[in-house]
Amino acid sequence: MAATRARIAVDAMGGDHAPDEIVAGAIRASEELDVTILLVGDRQQIEQSLQHHIQSPNIEIVEADGAISMEEGITELRRKPNASINVAMDLVKQNRADAVVSAGHSGAAMAAATLRLGRIKGIDRPAIGAVFPTMLAGKSVIILDVGANVDCRPKYLEQFALMGTIYSEYVLGVEQPKVGLLNIGEESTKGNDLALQTYELLEANPKIPFIGNAEGRDVLSGRFDVIVCDGFVGNVLLKFAEAVGEILLQIMREELPQGWRGKVGSSLLKPNLKRLKQRIDHAEHGGALLFGVAGICIISHGSSQAPSIFNAIRLAKEAISHQVIDRIQADRKQTEEDGLAQSATVNSEL
Amino acid sequence: MAATRARIAVDAMGGDHAPDEIVAGAIRASEELDVTILLVGDRQQIEQSLQHHIQSPNIEIVEADGAISMEEGITELRRKPNASINVAMDLVKQNRADAVVSAGHSGAAMAAATLRLGRIKGIDRPAIGAVFPTMLAGKSVIILDVGANVDCRPKYLEQFALMGTIYSEYVLGVEQPKVGLLNIGEESTKGNDLALQTYELLEANPKIPFIGNAEGRDVLSGRFDVIVCDGFVGNVLLKFAEAVGEILLQIMREELPQGWRGKVGSSLLKPNLKRLKQRIDHAEHGGALLFGVAGICIISHGSSQAPSIFNAIRLAKEAISHQVIDRIQADRKQTEEDGLAQSATVNSEL
Repeated sequence: MAATRARIAVDAMGGDHAPDEIVAGAIRASEELDVTILLVGDRQQIEQSLQHHIQSPNIEIVEADGAISMEEGITELRRKPNASINVAMDLVKQNRADAVVSAGHSGAAMAAATLRLGRIKGIDRPAIGAVFPTMLAGKSVIILDVGANVDCRPKYLEQFALMGTIYSEYVLGVEQPKVGLLNIGEESTKGNDLALQTYELLEANPKIPFIGNAEGRDVLSGRFDVIVCDGFVGNVLLKFAEAVGEILLQIMREELPQGWRGKVGSSLLKPNLKRLKQRIDHAEHGGALLFGVAGICIISHGSSQAPSIFNAIRLAKEAISHQVIDRIQADRKQTEEDGLAQSATVNSEL
Repeated sequence: MAATRARIAVDAMGGDHAPDEIVAGAIRASEELDVTILLVGDRQQIEQSLQHHIQSPNIEIVEADGAISMEEGITELRRKPNASINVAMDLVKQNRADAVVSAGHSGAAMAAATLRLGRIKGIDRPAIGAVFPTMLAGKSVIILDVGANVDCRPKYLEQFALMGTIYSEYVLGVEQPKVGLLNIGEESTKGNDLALQTYELLEANPKIPFIGNAEGRDVLSGRFDVIVCDGFVGNVLLKFAEAVGEILLQIMREELPQGWRGKVGSSLLKPNLKRLKQRIDHAEHGGALLFGVAGICIISHGSSQAPSIFNAIRLAKEAISHQVIDRIQADRKQTEEDGLAQSATVNSEL
């Protein structure tokens, strides 16, 4: 079956290591992943980065004028309509690309996506979902929101749960995803106001495979496939988790090679330590997905280097091939129709 | 100088491994720490546990009638006035002990402390403070609140910051503690409503050495000595951090001994791995302190075994010898007087 080759717009100007590392990751993806990459940004700079690589037929350049720096943020978004992130979003809007990947200012990427692509009808707030590795090898958990919405209402979290379930089922291939609500205890009576109200909504919604509260200790246990929380808690957790992996690797680098036995032992363990690093290193797991906008957007870490960009592009490709957006739209439409049907029934009963 | 020997009431009936492991930790503390331990609980059970050990002259038994189980929680607290946790608190109230250590139901311990000892005047809400190791060897950070208050007001967090500063300075011996507000970005304009308002209070208070927002990634960096947050975020973070250490140790146990090189290497690395474990294992760092009640209470993990109980008793002893409660009381009194003086000035100006 000759499926259409996915076309992914990559913001070549976004991130601490742009454009060189972005371009390097994109090139590798174009060679290994059966995708066409549209590098969006300053043509001259991109061409310079491309010179370090063998030419790939699956790379195109789309010119943009400037970028949103980490300092500027979203205020500059409207003043720079041709900035790389805006142009990348427009490519999706115009059906010239199927997804956007950016390691630039995450707030700006989110705002650009919302402004240019719009929200999916029936979704009140877009959310950022991050995929974490769990202690069970090969099993991930998606957590949303990890930073888009610092103050949430219960129904936002309900919508996050629905979107996460679709993602878990179709993209991550989990047969019966288990959804949890991040909370401070297992009992339904535990938690702050938001958690208490959200618990009721999740429990009452037949489309959400809700199995209960997830405590901090459950996040990486593999017991849950989807965990919902407000963007404040989620962001703190995401950044803590990213750092803790690095800190542990550093403590290992400090402690393991001490003494002659340590030196010999560490050298023997090199391949095993590398595998260990891969299991706990967040960079191996690509970027975060922006849920709820009418297009696929992967938001990568600002510090992303080529391997992270490669993984983010792979994530984008998977979201495209599993039609995440269509499925969320269909679910929302269904919910709306059910709602209308229900209120029609209620009305006819009156 | 013949200082009075600290007397510490230990809830012998609280925790998953009570009373055996509690008694074992208490015995060791009574031998090594220059403290007298009052084991509170069922005399027969305690005496049975004591039989496994050499008699210590610094152990006393204080009889109590029953305990609050993990399932019962705080509702049973009033119905069981002679439960071990209530009796332990009364010992402090009656000046027969200087501190309480309990690995029982943490909510019940907090409620018992608040009901029996009362809050320190000028503190609106007690908070649980947990000491985390940081990536800098030998440097800790205290985080509060980690679970007592799920919905907080800005002034609660301001009070947490004051209490944490006193603890950091006098107990942990940090000369100029650096206080941070847990948040999702470094800028003062970042965060949810609570964070935005708390930022202003912390910045305006001359007694708080506030250096700005702490993101999730900063928690274990060693940049901060005290980090304040609401009890919901703090509890999620605490439980996540506890679990992540265990998960990492497990992944190491899975990955490191693979293959013959792995087996030889791991065996050579045994002492280094043990040191590594000590640096990341939360149990090594004792319990959490309940701040804001008129007495020293250490809340240990329900799964505590003898080493954790020993460390919790050490923590209690340090809090006693550095007069944490007196200092917080003095600070609150000073603040009140300043407030009265200020309003007197304002009144005379009217």
